[in-house]
Amino acid sequence: MENRIFNFAAGPCTLPVPALKKAQNEFLDYEGAGMSLIEMSHRGAQYDKVHSSAMANVREVLGVPDNYDVLLLQGGATLQFAMIPMNFLAQGKTGEYVNTGTWAKKALSDGKKIGATRVIWSGEADGYTRMPAASEIKTGDDAAYVHLCSNETIGGIELQEYPDTGDVPLIVDMSSHILSRPVPFEKISMIYAGAQKNMGPAGLGVVIIRKDLVEKAADNLPAYLSYKTHAPKDSLYNTPPVFAIYMMKLTLDWMKDIGGLAALEDLAVKRSGAIYDAVDKSDGYFRCPVDTASRSRMNVVWRLPSEDLEKKFIQEALNVGFSGLKGHRSVGGCRASMYNAMPIEGAISLAQFMLDFKRKN
Amino acid sequence: MENRIFNFAAGPCTLPVPALKKAQNEFLDYEGAGMSLIEMSHRGAQYDKVHSSAMANVREVLGVPDNYDVLLLQGGATLQFAMIPMNFLAQGKTGEYVNTGTWAKKALSDGKKIGATRVIWSGEADGYTRMPAASEIKTGDDAAYVHLCSNETIGGIELQEYPDTGDVPLIVDMSSHILSRPVPFEKISMIYAGAQKNMGPAGLGVVIIRKDLVEKAADNLPAYLSYKTHAPKDSLYNTPPVFAIYMMKLTLDWMKDIGGLAALEDLAVKRSGAIYDAVDKSDGYFRCPVDTASRSRMNVVWRLPSEDLEKKFIQEALNVGFSGLKGHRSVGGCRASMYNAMPIEGAISLAQFMLDFKRKN
Repeated sequence: MENRIFNFAAGPCTLPVPALKKAQNEFLDYEGAGMSLIEMSHRGAQYDKVHSSAMANVREVLGVPDNYDVLLLQGGATLQFAMIPMNFLAQGKTGEYVNTGTWAKKALSDGKKIGATRVIWSGEADGYTRMPAASEIKTGDDAAYVHLCSNETIGGIELQEYPDTGDVPLIVDMSSHILSRPVPFEKISMIYAGAQKNMGPAGLGVVIIRKDLVEKAADNLPAYLSYKTHAPKDSLYNTPPVFAIYMMKLTLDWMKDIGGLAALEDLAVKRSGAIYDAVDKSDGYFRCPVDTASRSRMNVVWRLPSEDLEKKFIQEALNVGFSGLKGHRSVGGCRASMYNAMPIEGAISLAQFMLDFKRKN
Repeated sequence: MENRIFNFAAGPCTLPVPALKKAQNEFLDYEGAGMSLIEMSHRGAQYDKVHSSAMANVREVLGVPDNYDVLLLQGGATLQFAMIPMNFLAQGKTGEYVNTGTWAKKALSDGKKIGATRVIWSGEADGYTRMPAASEIKTGDDAAYVHLCSNETIGGIELQEYPDTGDVPLIVDMSSHILSRPVPFEKISMIYAGAQKNMGPAGLGVVIIRKDLVEKAADNLPAYLSYKTHAPKDSLYNTPPVFAIYMMKLTLDWMKDIGGLAALEDLAVKRSGAIYDAVDKSDGYFRCPVDTASRSRMNVVWRLPSEDLEKKFIQEALNVGFSGLKGHRSVGGCRASMYNAMPIEGAISLAQFMLDFKRKN
């Protein structure tokens, strides 16, 4: 791994080197089977072990209670934007959405295609620079569910405290910060995440859903689009995305090896802290547009004194091995996405680079 | 590859060794990028080249005309069972389905969830042992489309001549024999296939669709479920299944290297011919239950004189390196699935093994 760079792209993301090496080593002949894992029947014993280990790893590392199903689906978080209202937005009910930015709006857009929706909180007037406080979320009597995106990658904001929505199911898109902090399952009925930021490669969506919510899902949906299809079949109704599930399993094996969720949270605090410190100690040279209490540990965004300096910063950073630091085209600026497998050295050396850049420019 | 066995499983399938080796070699550091391809942004130049090469390879090897889009989606063929009626089954119209067996029925089942359907031909009375002749397919005035599965893996039957459905779009599930014979695009409006049998690993569905059909698709569908979302974005609306697309690209590179579609068809004829010869020359010891004209080149099914002998055959075959020969549990018997990457040596040595087994039993 002599040529390893620090990849700060917003997704897909850095994966743990031990997981990548193991996958490479056994790629041609999986555990003596005489074939690659990706060539095997998904109904065979060897793949079955990978599949069930992947689900067990999610349960173990995230502390998923027994009354939740773990589903491994295709279509990433984007297909969940559709499946959620198709399964849970019954006629006469309203899907309630918290508008925290780009990802929340994508979920809302699909909700509108299926039924009645309502935005119960919006950060639009503030330029999506903060998350709501738990007390700001109020549900209506006709609510089918409350949908929330708990970390917005473009705005660089992260929810700190989940609201208590009572009997109304709270459904949370955790794609961009899952497995980086504990989950208060007592408040949350369903979590979903595209795997490609914090858990593995692209091509896999993970859904963690309370079993009683599965039972309440709509009947008569096409097979793939119904949670009721996948839950009783352990996500083996059809051919699963074998390689993505396998890489997720290896990524979670690594997470267990380094100390599990507590270690991952500690890393997230330290990585983001290094960058925010560099911003805060720069006498305004670097400027984070986000409300301090809503700062994301995963996606740190900042501006420089001018767009020309931002361009120069991004280019010089790339030259020394920091890739993917350009902010989203819709907001500009700089962004360091530091998901679970980003080594602490990446953040520390980027912070040092920022201070050096300031000194020279 | 000392330990390489012959994998006759019905899917996922054998992949070309050169493609597997290339993927392994560049797995940790893709073309000097300092990271794995599966860690890269899907909006970057390096992945973009893989993505567009994968689509170009499909066009080149299958001879896809310019007025068709090639889409790379998640959810395999199963999600297409849902998307087809959601996009094309308008009110007042009827989705027409040809019932050739298990896979046809799955597509029909999803059609029923969305709108009116009609079975316009069924092989049920014959135990799904034959495909319809082109002349047996008649469309109604209210037809939205005709849906057809052109190779049934469980029955071991393969369509020989496509019907001419005139102005009614013909939509074909080619999952289990795509890229093994030429496609008469003049008769077909849309093809779809799960990649994991003939084109690559699991986790990818390929859709080849005439551009005017995309334009006629329903409006107001959730984003992921609309062909209109994916076609203008070159299947990059959301994060694509990077690794599966990359492996498909490598698999198609290999197909081009060995001589393209003509070579693949020649292989399919020779592989299946070797097994059917062994059956036909066995004086009834091996028995193929399929109508001779409908015999599949991809999934060859046969029976032995007793179920005990079938068990013995499958076990002894496994012992000498032929894996996956058990017939589907719904029909029993034996089955050799020989998809595009199965070497001719696999079929020849299996045929020899069959004759040896007969002599000894």
